[in-house]
Amino acid sequence: MADNFTLDARLAAESHALGELALCRVLLFDDARFPWIVLVPRRPGLVEMTDLPHADRHVLLDEIGAAMDALKEVTAPYKLNVAALGNAVRQLHVHVIARFPNDPAWPSPVWGRGERVPYKPVTLAERADKLRTAFFD
Amino acid sequence: MADNFTLDARLAAESHALGELALCRVLLFDDARFPWIVLVPRRPGLVEMTDLPHADRHVLLDEIGAAMDALKEVTAPYKLNVAALGNAVRQLHVHVIARFPNDPAWPSPVWGRGERVPYKPVTLAERADKLRTAFFD
Repeated sequence: MADNFTLDARLAAESHALGELALCRVLLFDDARFPWIVLVPRRPGLVEMTDLPHADRHVLLDEIGAAMDALKEVTAPYKLNVAALGNAVRQLHVHVIARFPNDPAWPSPVWGRGERVPYKPVTLAERADKLRTAFFD
Repeated sequence: MADNFTLDARLAAESHALGELALCRVLLFDDARFPWIVLVPRRPGLVEMTDLPHADRHVLLDEIGAAMDALKEVTAPYKLNVAALGNAVRQLHVHVIARFPNDPAWPSPVWGRGERVPYKPVTLAERADKLRTAFFD
């Protein structure tokens, strides 16, 4: 299934892999300002959600739901933001972001607001561990 | 099914109803800068997509696909943006927006970029007619 799938270089550079669901690679976006998951279906050549076969779209939605549940469990957000944009990185990917009224972009969307703040190693390890447990255990 | 559903007042004020799908009310967002559909599931009290029962989530995804197909047919976009944010309007709603490299927000997301430009009546009627045909005929 994963034949010929290569993660976009920019997504790879700005994230840390948490693991694999049935359809998607699960990434933690490397921005300590926001708890931020990116799901990438492991199929080559996808741009829009409608490029996925119908059954796979439902799997994608179920995996979006799993990401929402994991972020709820680990971070107890005020609101979740879910988006497939793709203006900058064309490879199909879905953002699932935990939002809080005191986060640095609220109430705006997070994209293009200030500079990304990479995690410090200890914080990254702790957050990644908790999210892996919520997704996969 | 639609019992007790009331469209959020801000969504109602800034959009024009195009019709009803099985789950969602279909709105044309009143911003002539971007071809922009908003889908609102006609269920009371929803905030997150995960508030929908599992089967309804799949219906929602199918209706998002229908909105993507309608915008593709009517506007031939370079990219579609799909998002459920809800930071400003808490009632669950999904944006489906046709994007072009020469649109006034490209490559940024559309939210919070400049002022909304309401349609002129003739342009509104033409766009609404074409989208209604693409969705419902």
